[in-house]
Parts: sequence; structure tokens; C-alpha cells
Amino acid sequence: MATKYVYYFGKGKAEGKADMKSLLGGKGANLAEMTNIKLPVPPGFTITTEVCNAYYANKKKFPKELKKQLEDALKKVEKDMGCKFGDPLNPLLLSVRSGARASMPGMMDTVLNLGLNDTTVKGLIAKTGNERFVYDSYRRFVQMYGDVVMDLKPKDKHQIDPFEEIIEAKKKKRKIESDIDFSAQDLKELAEEFKLEIKKETGMNFPDDPMEQLWGSVGAVFRSWMNDRAIVYRKLNNIPVEWGTAVNVQSMVFGNLGDTSGTGVAFTRNPSNGENEFYGEYLMNAQGEDVVAGTRTPLPMSELKKAKPKIYKQLEQVRKNLEKHYHDMMDIEFTMQDEVLYMLQCRAGKRTGYASVRIAVDMVKEKLISEKEAVLRVDPEQLNQLLRPIFSLTEKQEAVRSGKLLATGLNAGPGAACGKVYFNSFDAVNAHARGETVILVRIETSPEDIRGMSASEGILTSRGGMTSHAALVARQMGKVCVAGCGQLDIDYLLKTIKVKGKPHIIKEGDFLSIDGSTGEVIVGKLQAKPSEILQVLVDKTLKPEKSKSYSYYSTFMKWVDKYRRLKIRTNADQPDQCENAIAFGAEGIGLCRTEHMFFGGDRINAVREMILAYSTEGRKKALAKILPYQRKDFTEIFRVMKGLPVTIRTLDPPLHEFLPHTENEITKLAELIGTNVDEIKYKLNALHEFNPMLGHRGCRLGISFPEITEMQSRAIFEAAAAVIKEGKKVYPEIMIPLIGNEKEFIEQETIIRRTAEEVMKEKKIRFKYKVGTMIEIPRAAIVADKIAKYAEFFSFGTNDLTQMTFGISRDDAASFMPDYREKELLNRDPFESIDTEGVGMLMEWAVRKGRETRPDIKLGICGEHGGEPDSITFCDQLGLEYVSCSPFRVPVARLAAARASLNKAKK
Amino acid sequence: MATKYVYYFGKGKAEGKADMKSLLGGKGANLAEMTNIKLPVPPGFTITTEVCNAYYANKKKFPKELKKQLEDALKKVEKDMGCKFGDPLNPLLLSVRSGARASMPGMMDTVLNLGLNDTTVKGLIAKTGNERFVYDSYRRFVQMYGDVVMDLKPKDKHQIDPFEEIIEAKKKKRKIESDIDFSAQDLKELAEEFKLEIKKETGMNFPDDPMEQLWGSVGAVFRSWMNDRAIVYRKLNNIPVEWGTAVNVQSMVFGNLGDTSGTGVAFTRNPSNGENEFYGEYLMNAQGEDVVAGTRTPLPMSELKKAKPKIYKQLEQVRKNLEKHYHDMMDIEFTMQDEVLYMLQCRAGKRTGYASVRIAVDMVKEKLISEKEAVLRVDPEQLNQLLRPIFSLTEKQEAVRSGKLLATGLNAGPGAACGKVYFNSFDAVNAHARGETVILVRIETSPEDIRGMSASEGILTSRGGMTSHAALVARQMGKVCVAGCGQLDIDYLLKTIKVKGKPHIIKEGDFLSIDGSTGEVIVGKLQAKPSEILQVLVDKTLKPEKSKSYSYYSTFMKWVDKYRRLKIRTNADQPDQCENAIAFGAEGIGLCRTEHMFFGGDRINAVREMILAYSTEGRKKALAKILPYQRKDFTEIFRVMKGLPVTIRTLDPPLHEFLPHTENEITKLAELIGTNVDEIKYKLNALHEFNPMLGHRGCRLGISFPEITEMQSRAIFEAAAAVIKEGKKVYPEIMIPLIGNEKEFIEQETIIRRTAEEVMKEKKIRFKYKVGTMIEIPRAAIVADKIAKYAEFFSFGTNDLTQMTFGISRDDAASFMPDYREKELLNRDPFESIDTEGVGMLMEWAVRKGRETRPDIKLGICGEHGGEPDSITFCDQLGLEYVSCSPFRVPVARLAAARASLNKAKK
Repeated sequence: MATKYVYYFGKGKAEGKADMKSLLGGKGANLAEMTNIKLPVPPGFTITTEVCNAYYANKKKFPKELKKQLEDALKKVEKDMGCKFGDPLNPLLLSVRSGARASMPGMMDTVLNLGLNDTTVKGLIAKTGNERFVYDSYRRFVQMYGDVVMDLKPKDKHQIDPFEEIIEAKKKKRKIESDIDFSAQDLKELAEEFKLEIKKETGMNFPDDPMEQLWGSVGAVFRSWMNDRAIVYRKLNNIPVEWGTAVNVQSMVFGNLGDTSGTGVAFTRNPSNGENEFYGEYLMNAQGEDVVAGTRTPLPMSELKKAKPKIYKQLEQVRKNLEKHYHDMMDIEFTMQDEVLYMLQCRAGKRTGYASVRIAVDMVKEKLISEKEAVLRVDPEQLNQLLRPIFSLTEKQEAVRSGKLLATGLNAGPGAACGKVYFNSFDAVNAHARGETVILVRIETSPEDIRGMSASEGILTSRGGMTSHAALVARQMGKVCVAGCGQLDIDYLLKTIKVKGKPHIIKEGDFLSIDGSTGEVIVGKLQAKPSEILQVLVDKTLKPEKSKSYSYYSTFMKWVDKYRRLKIRTNADQPDQCENAIAFGAEGIGLCRTEHMFFGGDRINAVREMILAYSTEGRKKALAKILPYQRKDFTEIFRVMKGLPVTIRTLDPPLHEFLPHTENEITKLAELIGTNVDEIKYKLNALHEFNPMLGHRGCRLGISFPEITEMQSRAIFEAAAAVIKEGKKVYPEIMIPLIGNEKEFIEQETIIRRTAEEVMKEKKIRFKYKVGTMIEIPRAAIVADKIAKYAEFFSFGTNDLTQMTFGISRDDAASFMPDYREKELLNRDPFESIDTEGVGMLMEWAVRKGRETRPDIKLGICGEHGGEPDSITFCDQLGLEYVSCSPFRVPVARLAAARASLNKAKK
Repeated sequence: MATKYVYYFGKGKAEGKADMKSLLGGKGANLAEMTNIKLPVPPGFTITTEVCNAYYANKKKFPKELKKQLEDALKKVEKDMGCKFGDPLNPLLLSVRSGARASMPGMMDTVLNLGLNDTTVKGLIAKTGNERFVYDSYRRFVQMYGDVVMDLKPKDKHQIDPFEEIIEAKKKKRKIESDIDFSAQDLKELAEEFKLEIKKETGMNFPDDPMEQLWGSVGAVFRSWMNDRAIVYRKLNNIPVEWGTAVNVQSMVFGNLGDTSGTGVAFTRNPSNGENEFYGEYLMNAQGEDVVAGTRTPLPMSELKKAKPKIYKQLEQVRKNLEKHYHDMMDIEFTMQDEVLYMLQCRAGKRTGYASVRIAVDMVKEKLISEKEAVLRVDPEQLNQLLRPIFSLTEKQEAVRSGKLLATGLNAGPGAACGKVYFNSFDAVNAHARGETVILVRIETSPEDIRGMSASEGILTSRGGMTSHAALVARQMGKVCVAGCGQLDIDYLLKTIKVKGKPHIIKEGDFLSIDGSTGEVIVGKLQAKPSEILQVLVDKTLKPEKSKSYSYYSTFMKWVDKYRRLKIRTNADQPDQCENAIAFGAEGIGLCRTEHMFFGGDRINAVREMILAYSTEGRKKALAKILPYQRKDFTEIFRVMKGLPVTIRTLDPPLHEFLPHTENEITKLAELIGTNVDEIKYKLNALHEFNPMLGHRGCRLGISFPEITEMQSRAIFEAAAAVIKEGKKVYPEIMIPLIGNEKEFIEQETIIRRTAEEVMKEKKIRFKYKVGTMIEIPRAAIVADKIAKYAEFFSFGTNDLTQMTFGISRDDAASFMPDYREKELLNRDPFESIDTEGVGMLMEWAVRKGRETRPDIKLGICGEHGGEPDSITFCDQLGLEYVSCSPFRVPVARLAAARASLNKAKK
């Protein structure tokens, strides 16, 4: 049987359904699902994502089976709609839209009103009796088709759209201001002029044949899968290019047939704060694109309730049905054509992190979903938003009182951001590259702006609603956003913002503070402060019972912890960091770097003296000075950690990192420790390495200078003894870095265990401890079975493991990584998320081999990947005992771990 | 049953045999074998290597079963010898010697004359009637036991031996010059004084109890397995510490009973040139140690034939029997006691590379061994000696005529060496580290000197024969050696060499030229020139039929090629290198580095212009200038290679390597290419990398600058087309470096294949070529299955693969590798021989995965390991198609490959 490439939906029956997203895309699957649950969906069909892949695999040609399947489906649409595509008297009009597995709003192309030509136009006029509407549709169609299919684009970034140029010329000629004022004749002429321009610029005739229009549009939408915006968006959102997009061909309904028609988008709950209310916007006499594009500021749903109570009631029912059916907060698009409601789209609604948690918790209470489902509903990265900074209320009030409140817009992306103003993506990206904090200010954003949005801390627009491009993308990126702030008079040319009645002129580079939770835009710098949850957990300035958001958070996190198998530890080496991490739910320290303790205060001088020593005796003398500092550090950490395991890594970085490099500092140091400048320079020179990452560091230091390992273990064990004597529990795990074979391990382990015995004897106390190793050199993973004979635990150091497995120095990758991204040579940045194929294989091997010799070996990860959700999922699959990440990532890691467990259980 | 730890031999019957070397050590196995073939071996027993391992595993205690087994064996010895250990009237004396699996001459300890004490001494005097001999044996025994077992050593390196000090004092007191002049009474006193000194210095009494002497000696010999010399020797010779040593306890026979006694060492053929003659040395009235230590210069075997014709005839028979029995050239030790011959040791004789080849070829002709056995008889590294330089005959004759011949010694290690003179190991090692070529000059060498010997090009001694320590070790290390050059008056204190009747005073740092093939020592520098084989193969200045050594070589290499499976390629990028390689038997180029071609002449300027260009256009302009050069290079190489495969690697090193770094050069370059100095400096700065090995290099260059790959492939293919048009065959294989995933490969492959098509079209010609990749990044090995979908061949770049797998930068390893060696943390330098456990596992994986997707994938290696015998064996096991090495290593690789095949077949 031939592959089924086309799936029909219409009249309450569809061939697809909601769980066929990978084949039909999100939109297609949901159109089918809505059809199946008897929502009023205009009939149509979906061309599968497989066609997209086939199209690209086969030099942009369609599989030959597609033609007949498409024609058959088209016939069904004609039958269901009672009109015919291209029929001069009773023409069917179609829309062609993209629809990928994951939502990529605005990234790909759409063509509407297919089927119009000089003949069908007349039939449609006769049918609708609305000449102006028909010619408006016609000119829109020609314009869209000319742009999307025939590729007539602005010649450079300074030219405005060629079609808009013609429209502007026509307006001038007709002396009118707005599109609304065009007559039917004007619009008819515009369509003709567009066609002539297309012919002139592209050399091709605009196709009159509706079938040619259809194939052209389908091809163009597939091609838009590979446009620049889509590529960048996929990269930012980790969407694989292999997923492809589906194409939805659907019969047109019109929100722009006059005042009895309209169109809107809505969420079944508030996507910003999660409140259980019908939340959305609509425009009368408009097509859907008008709402999403943000060119006209739409009205809230509450207005619709008053204006069109019947339709509103119908929509309220749809809202309830959808939540009951999908068990989720949904994002819908609807059109009213002559007071008849059509559903054009429905999908899970994007929401802020806080809304996400609140909706999940509320839905459990409403018995719409289970606790497990709730956990799976919140994206771990979104949880991070709950920890984002807010402005101090008093400081903000003070600013408002002193007249610094510039304007108030929509609270489209929660959080507080303060930065320098830039007016386009290019400047924003550059400023970000210079290290500045950026607020991107745009009249409205378009998909072309996503690079700039990604580089900015906050986004501020003067046009567009809560569902505008700016708002949607900002929420998804976790950016602060104030949208539709209509008071702002933004001048791109002068690069200024003015507000009527306000004295300020904000210029490029000036500071603005925007509050995405309230919509306030404030002149100058405002200190951002911790979120409510941070105030409760970290600052302890807010009582838990006083905070609604904390209450949602803590309810949610209780469920998270209930379903998680992986333990979460933290990477911390200061007592206050450790305290924060515990507040965030950390269950131990996975990586305590001892070298951070080497800096600061007098100790760095002793460290330098140690490095400059030319004999073991000299080094021992200097180390004796460092010992009390290290012991104190560990003592404090052990106290804070209250018996939770603390994994301490022995000295890792190359010694030259501790030496001064400037002339001035060298002179000072020479004086201080009584040596001469040349000697320090000589040592610096001797310590210089061609590839320091692969040089004298890690356990290699402890092997060359066993006295360092000895001092460090003594500090650890003496601290342990001291804290135990205070009546507290202590559980140190000493971790040896950069091990490549078991002999290195034994060498260092021997020193550590000997020191432990000595300290226990001296202090007349016994304590438990473990000695283990990082697995961060490929060879260590390979011979893990041998190392596990001696090492009691492994902790994967995936930063270095990735560098060595890829042969890529992270510090030097900037020179070629942009080329790799541009050419899509890497699915994903391996330093961000574990490369499961390469690095992951070594990890898997190490786990298997390690367990072969030591079945109960303790396994964890302490590379930065330990806080990244996909990597956490992978670690869960590997069966590690814990992941370790920075304190602020702990909640994210807890959630990711719970989701990993639940997803595994589902399979 | 209890483990058998003791193996008896004596009276024509032994419990062991020759093939039990791993258990009994070489000496023990051969003593057993000689006993079995009825040679006159003094009875004794061997304590196995397992006891050595057990001893070290169990805190230097013996397994408890050993005691009874040893006592039983001792009883048998007593029975066979008809005397008793410790019997006051008829005492048995014993020797205790080490004997490892592989010969480690002089590295471990020996104790002779056990069983003597104040009581047995009297019995022995009565028995032998030779009071002086007995007391001499006694004082020797006390001296040896005191040194070896009771550890009375020189206090520091300036003190001479404490026993020698006593001897010297006694000589002074007795006003005599030589040991020979001591009376029996003197010797008796010496023994007493030695005992007093031992007591004074060690606090312990010298043991009178023979059994205590025996156990003490056995333990000391086992302990000597871990002495410094032994550790260094094992490292140099890749002998695993786990092998352990056996200990041989044997009844003493005496070569020092007077003029009817003597001792000697001999080879069944000439170990220097392989000639089939009885070759050796002996000393009358001496113990074996006196010959080996080189303290007295012995007489050649031809003298023995005259002096003791009966013994000589017996020995001639032994020689024949041994070669017939062992099918090899043997090294024997014998003692004559009162005109009775005893065989003390026999083992395969060490020989020079040339002797090795010649003996192997001769023995095939003599039908003693088969061709296959012949191939297995020659160590690949030894073959290298045949290619070692020799002095020009005319130049040497000229030097001799002009009075520069300082002296002539024994031709103990063939080859010609010229270098600066140093008088001790310490200075030699330092000079070597400074980059100097060193001739180590010693009166005689001892095991303490091996570090210095290893650092020297040539070794010159004034004492000792062809079997002296210097000669043996030099031959094994493949060093040039002139030994026993008695005319030399070497003064360690002044660091000078004088020769009676010669005007020269050679001081430290002066140049000497020594000819290890003739024994000549010449003042000043002599140009070394290619060996005969090189003269035939490379210089073509010698007709093959005129050279005996070439004739042996070529006969041997024909057999080598007959039994080898692996193909041997070469790493070469100059036409003359390629020609040499073909002469050495290379069957293709495994690695042609294109970057070497980037230097030299005008081309480097074009390369620099390309690097400094800021646009693709600028780069293309500069590349167009490089193209003709590269094309010419490839054209010449293809011509020379006559259709043999040529693997060309696209540009690999980081670009900054091509830029000038000195102020002066930068200024010149700026003028030349019309840019300014700052711009070059800016670029240099921009190209700086923290870890260049893991930076912008390899295919990453071609990905960032596809125009480079395009130019290089065009040059290759245009050259191919040109040479094909000359009527010759061409077979290019283009190799992409530093691939980490298949997408990178596809990207570069596409450019190469497109260029190939273009060139074929332009030149109206078709040619075959392959596109493949290096496997040098761990990740590439891991995902080899995916890469093999596109790559037609893999070539293992084991240099980088080792660096990344170990996380060790070869350039930076010097700072910690000495510590690793000292602490024995690496079995072997992984940059010298493939680390089969770690790197090898990745190679194995890559081979398996690569074949999964492409069963006929071509596999090779082009890292430096490709010329190292053990690595070649590993590559043969992996089933690679070829190894590639530098031209001069090709013969070695051919032999190693043949041996690998034969050894595999044996299993």
C-alpha cells in the first residue's frame, strides 16, 4: 500500500487525532482532534511531515503518490463545503499553513485565500454580495503569494516591502490615510499592480490556475521550514531539523466580511499568572493574522461578552469542553463569519513559569489532572522563571512618585529587567556581545527580531497584545516583556522614545527598567531584587504563608520530590552557597572545588609561596600556612551541610593560574615573600603550557607534589573531626580529579587514606569517608572497571569529558562554532546538553564497567550538564544516583529528575 | 596439592625445561634444559617467579610451603654432590642468582660461596688443600653478602665501596699493589675485618649459620627485582614488573682454584657480525663475575684452543649440541675446575641487528631453522641497526693518515657515532637534555650507567671485552660501542683522555668519532654516512651484488614480505622522501601532510596573505596563488608513486602556525603583502588559542573556509589528471582530519567530490579516488558507524587520539611524566607504543562499528605508532589493511608485520 501522505478532517470526522503530532504537526493533529470532538472546524486536510522530509531528501520534489491523495482530499472538502475550488460561480477558497510538531509561532509561511483569480473573483462577489471584501481578499492573496511563493522580497534591509510601496503610492495618489479607506476599485487595481510588479521583478506570471496556486503554496510552506528565522528558532528551542513541518490546507472562513464577522485568539486560563479565567483578545472585521501580528490593538474577551453574547457563550462552552478534553490550558484561534463561530486552531497554551505551576496545581485540585500529570506539565526551564528577580516595591514606588514612570503596557513576560535601550536586533546583539545588559525596544517585533530578543534581558513594544509575537516569544524564552505600551512614541531613525506629556527623551544606550509582571516602564536604573520565592527561601524576609506564589511552588515541589528517583546535589564551595542550595532542596554537595578557597586574603600568598618553592621542604612550609584556612573552610561547610554528603575535589587547576601575571603584581609578590622578580618570571615561564587543559593539573599535581594532597586531606579530616566533636554528623567524600588509570588513583588514594588514619589516631575519633574519582578523561571511562576496583564513587566531569571526547576546547570554540551552527553541523551545543551519542556512550560504558567490578559504586555527575533537564533525563536513564548543579538550578534539576522518572515509568 | 615452588636439576635430570621460562626464568629454564640434554651442569634448584610475586604481595614474606620444598631440594643437591651444606668436614657451597623471564644482565643481585663460615672454611681447606683459595672465597662471600643481603653500601656517591676501602687499606699496610699479592692470612683477616665493619655499620652480626645465609640470600635476590637499576632497565626494555624473577640456587664450582681452573663466556656464533665461529673469552684462575664485569681483559677463545685443547674440544661439542638443540645462537657461561668443564648458563645470545639477520639467514641455509622461524628471530628494532650510519671510508682514512686515530678498541656495537665527550652518566644525561650528541666515555660501565648510555649516541670504554656490560647493553640498545680500548688513559677527575704517544688531550665537550664496526676511535668530527644498505637502496652508490650485508638483508626481507599480511605505507610529503620509502618497500603513502608544502619559497607569502584576508574573496585570490604550487607538488608525488595509493590530508594545523611571530618578520611581511603591522598583530592576536590542539584546526578550518578545501582538492585532482595524461596510474585518497561527527565529514566531502567532478569535466578525463577520514578524536571512534556511511576509509591518527584519550598534551607532559615514570604509573609511554587498553579499545570499537556500516572499509594507521613493532602487532590483530610510518621505519614495519602474522598463526 502506498504511504498515506494526506489526512482529511471535516464535518465532525477526521482521519487524524491529537496524538499524531509527529506526523501531522501540532496544528494538524489538533484540527483533527477538534473536528472529532465536534467543534466547528472548517474542513480541510493535512499533508504529513514525512512529505517535508521526502521533499528535502529528493531535491525539493514531492513524492509522486501525493498528487492523487491531495486531489481526493480536495474533492472531499469541496463536497463538505458545497462549493468547488476554481469554480467560476461557486468558488472554494483555501488557506495553506505550516504546522510543525513543536509550535514555532510566526517562523514559517502561510498563504491565504487561494483559489482567487479574475474569474472566481466575480463568482465570489455574486455569492457574497461584498465586492470590496472580495477585492481586498484578492489583493491580500496576490501580495502574500507574491511574497511567499514567488519570493518577491525587499531588495535590501532598507527597502520597505515592494507591495507596501505600491500601497503607499496608491494611498498618496488617492489621498487617503488608511487601508480601510480603499474602495473596491482601488483594491482591484492594487491586485493588478501587484501582478505587474511580480512579473517585472521575477519575470514570472502570477498563476491564475487555482491548482497551480495550491501546489505553489504547499511547496513554499515546506520551503519555509529552512528559512533563516526557522533555523534560528529551532536552534534556540532545540527542535531537530528532521522533524519537518506538516502543511494544512483548509477551507477559508472570513472574519473580515463586515461587522458581523471577526476573529480572535484566547487562552482557556490566564497565561501570565495562571488564573482560571477566559483570557484573550479579538478584533471585529479582521482576519486572524491581524490579531497575531499586533498591527491593531485588539479588545479583551470581556468586551466580546457584551458585544456578541451568543458567540461568547458558545466560546465559553468550547473553552470548558477543551479543558475537559485536553486536560490542559489551551490556546485557541477562532473566527466569526456572519455571526457563525469557527474554530481555526487549538493547542496547549504557552504560559509563564508561574502560570505553569499554578495551572498545574489548580488542575489537580479541580481533578482535571493527577499529581504526576501536573509534574509533567511544567517545563523545568520554566520553573527557573519563578526565581527571576523582581523590583523592590518601595524603590519602584519611589521612582513612580518622583515622576520616573514613563508608561504602562501589558505585563507580557514576568520578571524585572533593567538595561540599556537598543532599537533593533543588530544593535542589541552587538551590545550584548560587548557585555551590556540590553532592553530591546520595538514598535512591534517580528520573527526577524528573535536574535535580538535572545540577546536582550527585556523586550518592550508599543504595539501588540498579550498574544503578539513579542509576548509569545518572550514568555517562551523566559524574557521579561512589556508589550503594547501604546503611549511610547518610538522613532527608529532618531533612536529615541518619547511619551506625550513626559519630559524624558530616552536615547539609545539610556537605562530603562521594565517590570514584566506589572507592565510598568521606568526611566533609569532600578535595583532588581529576589523573587517572592527567593525572599522566602533564601532571604527569609518573607513568611511562607504570606506568599501565594510560594504556596503554589511548595505544593508543586512536594509532588516533584515524591516522584523523583535521582538525588540532587549542588556545586558549592562557600558556606552561604551551601545554605542557599539546601533551601532550594539540595541533598548534598556534589562538587566542592578546593581551589576557590586558595584565593582571597592572605592565603593566596601562601599558595604562591608554595608554587614558587623549589623543594619539597619549601612547599611543605608554605602548605602548613594554607592548612588552617582550608580546615576552617571545610569546618564551616560541614557544619552547614549537617551530615549530608560533601564531595570535595582535590586541587585541580594548573598552578600558573594562581600566580600573578602583571609586572606590578609580580613585583609586589616578590617583595612580600622575599624572592626576586626574575625568579617569579622564571617560574611563570616554566609553568607555561601549550595546552594547559591537557597539562599539569588534576591528580597530576598531587602526583608531582604529594604534599599538596596530604595537606588537603589533612584539612578535610581535621575539619571532620572537629565538627563531629561538636556533636554533628559529617560525611566527606574525597574526589580525585583527572584520573586516567587506576595506578594514579591508587597513588593518591594511599596518601588520603594514610592521612585519614593519622588524623583519626591523633584526634582519637573514627569517621566514615569515601575516596572516589572524577570520570572526565575518556580513558578513565574506558578503563572504569579497573578504576572501580579502588574508587568508591565516580562523578562524571562532563565539561572536560566533552572537551576531550570532541577534541574541542570550550575557550577556543568561538572561532568555529558560529560556522558549525550556521551549517547545522551539530544537533545541539554539547557543552549545554550532554552529547548522548558520543560522550553519553562513554558514560554508559563507564557505568556498566564500573558496576561490573563494584556493583554498589556510587555514581553522579558534577559537570554543568547536571543542571540541564535533557542531560538530567539522560543521567536518570543511566541510573546515576545523583546530579549536581549550581544552587539556583537545584529546583530545575529536581523537576527534571521527577519528569525523567515519570516519563520512564510511562514507557 | 600444594603449589610447586621449587624445581630441581642435576645429574642429567631436571624437573623443569626450556619452555618454562615464565615460571623458572631464563636462567633456570635453561639450566634445566642443559641438564636434560646431559651437559655438565652443577646440580641445584630454581625457586619460581611465582614466589617473587607472592613475596611482594605478602609484605616480603615467603609462602610457608617454600621451606620444606627448599630443604628437600637441598638434600638432593647434597646427595648428588656427595657433600653437605654446612658440614664441617665436607661442606657444600652454593650460589644464589636471579633469573628473570627476560635477560636483565647485571641488573639484579647474586651471592656466591654460601655455606662458608669459620668452621666449614677449615673443612674446605682440608678438602682442597688450597688455603689461599678458600680464604679468598670466604672474604668474597662476606663482601658480597654484606653488600647484597646486609645492605652495607657506600654512604654517598663519593665514597667508594666500604669493603674496597678496607682492601685498599690492607694493601697500603702490606705495601702490595694487586689483590693477587694477598696472602691467605691477609684474606682471612680481610674476612674478619669485613664482618667487624658490617657489625659496626649495620648493627647486625654476620650470620654463621649456612641456612640463615641461604634464606638471607634468596630474599635479597628477590628484593633486587625492585632496585633502581632493575626498574630503569625494565622500563627501557618494556618488561612488566609482574613477571618477577626466579632465584637459582646451585652448587658452586670454582674457576679460581689455580691455573688448572678458569671461567669463560662465549657465543656459538659471532654476535657482532653473525659469522659462524666460536666466539668468546675466558680467564684462567677466575670466577665468572671477573669476565662479565670487565675488570680484567680476558683472552679470546682461540687462545683456549691452544692452552687447553681437551676442554676446548669439549666446548666445541657443547656448542654444536646447543645450536642443534636450541636452533639458535647461544650465549654460554662455563667454568673449568681442575680441568673439569661445567656449564653454568646458556641462553639465546644477544646480537647486533646485522648479526641477527645473518645468523637467521645462515641457519635457514644450514636447515637449522625454517624461513618463518628466521623471520621470528630478528627483533624489528634491531633491523633498524642495519640502516645506521657509517663513516666515509676515505674521510676516515684521511683522518687516520693525518694522525687523528686515537686508539682502536673492540667493535662492540656497530655503527658510526660522533659527538661530544662526557665522562659520567649524570653529565651525559644533562648534555643530551641540552640537545647535544653525546659520546659516553667510561673506564668500564656498570648497571648504574644505563641512564647515561641511553642518553648517548656512542659508548667508549677502556676496559672490558665483547661481553662486558658496556658491549652487551650497547648492542641491545642499538648504540654504537667501542669497548676495551685499553690504550685510553681516562681520568674521571680531570675529565680527560690521554693516550701514550699521542699528542691529544681530549677534554669534556670535545668531539670524538667512534666506529663501532671497526673499533676505531678518532679525534674530532667525522661525517657519518649511510650504511651499506642505504648506499644500495637510497644513494644507489653501491651495486647490490657488491654488498654482503645487502645480500643478507634482501634475502631476509623477501621472507619477511612472504609472511606478512599488513601492507606498509609511509608518511611522506616530498618526492625524494617518497622515493626512499619505495626503496625501503613502502606500498603507498599513508599520510601526505599538505601543510609542509605551505612553507618554503614564495608560497608561504601567499599562505599568509590568505590567512590575513578578511573576506572569502580575498582568501580566494591568495589561494589562487597557492594552487599552482600545490598542484606541482602533487604532480611530482603522483609520478614517483606510480599508481600506488597516495593518502593526502587536507590542511590540518592552526593557521597561526603559518604567521610570523617576530617583530622583524612581521614588518617584512606587512611590506610584502601591502598591509600594516598592526593588522598582522591583530590577526595574530585573534588567532591565539588557549588550547590550540583542541582549537580551530583540522576539518574545522575547511568548514570555516571551504575555499581552502576546494583549492586543495583542485590541486590534487588537477595533478592527478596531468599525470594520468602522461600515461601513468594515479590513485589519490583524500583524507579529512579531525572529524568528530558525520556531518562535518559530509560537508567537506561534498566540496571534494564536487571539485573532482569539475576537474574531470574540465580535463575530459575520469579517475578514481577515495574520500576518507582520520580517526583521531575519541568521538569519531565512538560514532564510527555513522561516519563510515560516508567515509570510504579510516586512518587512525593515534598521536592525537592518544593525547585526547589520555587528556595529555605531549608538548606539556614533560612536567609530570618523569614523576609518572618514577612512580611507575604508566606501563609504557603511550606516545611510543599504542595504549591497547584505552586508545586500543577505541580503535577496536571504531573498526567494528565502521565495518558494521561499510564491511569493506579501508583501514589504516598513520600516527607515529605505525612504525613501532608492538603497535604494529596490535594493528595486525585489529585487522587493519596497512600501517604507515616514516620512510626509514618501513623495513622495521615490514618485519614487525610479518612477525605479527606468524605469531598469530602460531596461536
